[in-house]
Formats: sequence, structure tokens, C-alpha cells
Amino acid sequence: MSLLVLKKGLKWQWNKVLHIPNQKEFSMNDLYTFFNNISPIQAHTWAKLEVLFTEQTLNKGEYFISEGALAKKFGFLQEGIIRAFYRNSSGQEYNKHFFIENSLVGGFSSLISQQPNLINQQALTDCKLLVGDYKKLIDLLDEHQDLERLLRKIAEYYFVDKEKREVEIVLLEANKRYEIFQSDYPQLEQRIPQYHIASYLGITPTQLSRIRSQNSKA
Amino acid sequence: MSLLVLKKGLKWQWNKVLHIPNQKEFSMNDLYTFFNNISPIQAHTWAKLEVLFTEQTLNKGEYFISEGALAKKFGFLQEGIIRAFYRNSSGQEYNKHFFIENSLVGGFSSLISQQPNLINQQALTDCKLLVGDYKKLIDLLDEHQDLERLLRKIAEYYFVDKEKREVEIVLLEANKRYEIFQSDYPQLEQRIPQYHIASYLGITPTQLSRIRSQNSKA
Repeated sequence: MSLLVLKKGLKWQWNKVLHIPNQKEFSMNDLYTFFNNISPIQAHTWAKLEVLFTEQTLNKGEYFISEGALAKKFGFLQEGIIRAFYRNSSGQEYNKHFFIENSLVGGFSSLISQQPNLINQQALTDCKLLVGDYKKLIDLLDEHQDLERLLRKIAEYYFVDKEKREVEIVLLEANKRYEIFQSDYPQLEQRIPQYHIASYLGITPTQLSRIRSQNSKA
Repeated sequence: MSLLVLKKGLKWQWNKVLHIPNQKEFSMNDLYTFFNNISPIQAHTWAKLEVLFTEQTLNKGEYFISEGALAKKFGFLQEGIIRAFYRNSSGQEYNKHFFIENSLVGGFSSLISQQPNLINQQALTDCKLLVGDYKKLIDLLDEHQDLERLLRKIAEYYFVDKEKREVEIVLLEANKRYEIFQSDYPQLEQRIPQYHIASYLGITPTQLSRIRSQNSKA
């Protein structure tokens, strides 16, 4: 898929870490590398930026942000898996995205619009994050165009990613979407319950089982 | 809905023009106002920016961009209506967005990623646009942070808009989505065929008819 090519071309880090050490330490260097691979960050900008972040852990099951909240923080996920999902009025949940190691998390729409957040982001494993205050980040922009460019590129890739998903859901059969999921999130299916993957693909766990069984025979 | 509030708060222009004169002239001033309402543009930036645009007309039925093409241009729609849609392998079409007066059109994902464009954008009426070369726009960024900020904010609002639609499609019934459509696009349903609206709402024309009839009784 096009975005995957794009990610690889830019050394995009979402899918970089396939094997996660058990005792990974917090590392600002990972965050610097992540940002710098999207858009180059100057040393004096990084000096202002890195002090905005503090370490935070989330236990499995805890939420980074919930629907209805006003988002103020964003996070860089260093270790663990977070799912983003909607919940309808009957309580049914729809997974819309998985965040894995080396990705940004947070209620992006709510941060931008300062309207209540529409989604939930919940840890599916114990997680380690570096968390920053969005307003303090925005306050740095006037003096640091490299940071403004970074945020522009992040917003653009978020848009591209969302459009790619939108096309997949409308135009592709479930088995094809499953292949893309496997390519976009290598080894993720070994790390989380199958029903979360089925929900992401918009199918039932039984349908996912059938696809997996057909693929293993092929 | 939250985005509508956001648009209004920022004097976002998408829904501004409700009555369109028959013989609207091309106007760079409309484009300046549109940009400036999203993020302030300095005079010397505008001087560099406005010369990038040329006037273009599209006849009803013509395409601004087609799937498979590599996007190079973007447009500011001054008069008319353009629909964005996907087409599946059986030729079935899914409307994903309508562009109305005072909005930006173009294969945004393709412009950003430089991968082939996934969607089609087709004039539903005769259209007048101001069209610019994306690469020339990007070349201006190093010298003009106000332009970088404008592009950041546009990308962010595109993302917010897409997430809002995503939530609506997953969580809301068709009659509620129809209400939001009417609010987001005032008077549009009097200007284009009903089957295009049904396709946008993800329902059949018969279902749309039923919703309209129920609403008129209520």
C-alpha cells in the first residue's frame, strides 16, 4: 500500500520495533530519532522540546484519554500497545487504530479543535510513554519553524493514513484488509486478543478465524 | 457538531456562500480571505503566493483529478460543486465528500505522499477554480513560516473533518447523518441529484426518500 511505501521512504518509525526487550528504559533518544526522521529538528529546538516531556506508565486496561474529555496532552509510546476505539450508545466498541512502539498517541482532533474528544485510547498491555503538554508545544512554534514543519508533516501523514484506511474499508474485502493489517502491524496479532483485531477489520471473530484458516491452507 | 463549531469559530469559509450569483467573476480576494481566516498571511507572503494561481473552469461532468493520477495541482473552488468519490472494482461509486464554494480541492493524499491518487473529483455543476502548483507552493515555505502554519492548520482541519465523518458513519443512524449533512452543506440538496446524497450517506435513494418523508411529517 502507498502509505507503507511512504513510511518506509521516510524511515517512518511506526513499524520499526518488532522485538521489544522486556525491560526497555525510557529514552529521549528514541523520540528525537522519531521526530527527526519525519522532519529535521535543529539542536536548539530539541533543547526546548525535550524538556516538555515527562515519563508516564499505563497499566494494561488503563486509558490514555477517554471520550468526552478535553485533550491537553499527547504521548510518545515507547513500549506497549494502545488501541483507539469508539463506543456506540449500546456500548458496542469499534477499534479504529492500534498504536505500537514508537508512535504518537493522544486525542489529536480534540487537541486541535479544543472540542471534547470523541474516542477512547486504552492500553492493551503495560505501556511506557513520554508525555508532553500540547499548549507548551504550540508556544514554541513562533520561534522554531522546524517544529512547525514537523507538526505540519505529522498532520499530513495522519490525514494520509486515515484516507488509506477509509479506502480499504470501503473498497477491499476482509481478507485483503487482514493482509494489510499484517503488513502494517507486523507481529501484532501474536500480542493482542483476536477479537480486537476482528473489531479493527470490521468483522466477527468467527469470520477472522475463517480467513486465518483459509490463508494457512493457501 | 464539533467541527461545525470549529469552522464557525475560525470563520471557516466552507459553508459561507449560500446564494451564488449566476455570473461570479474569478476573485483572488476570496482566496486571500479564505486563507487569512484560517491563519494570518503577511502581505509579502501573499505577493509570492497569489502569482502561483491561474484561473480554470470545469464543465459539469469533468474531472479535477482521477484515481491513478499523480497529483500536482490543487484548486480553490470559487463557484460550483465537486464531488470526491471512490469506485470499486465492479464500478460502484461511493461519494465521500462534496466541495462547495470557497473550499480547497485536489488529491491531497497524493500531493503529500507523491503516490498515485486513490480518489476521483468530478464537477457536478460548471465550476470556476483558481489552480496552483503544489511544488511551487512548497518551495515558498522556507522563507515564509506563515505559509507553513497555514498548511499545518489546513492539514489539521482536514484530519479533524475526516475523523468527524468517520465517527458519524460508525456511530450514527442514517437520519442523524442526514441532519448533519443538511447542516454542513446548507441548500446543497437543492442543487445536486438525490442519488449523490444517498451515496454520501451510505444509503439507497429509496431510504433517503423515506427519511425525507418522515422528517417532513415530523
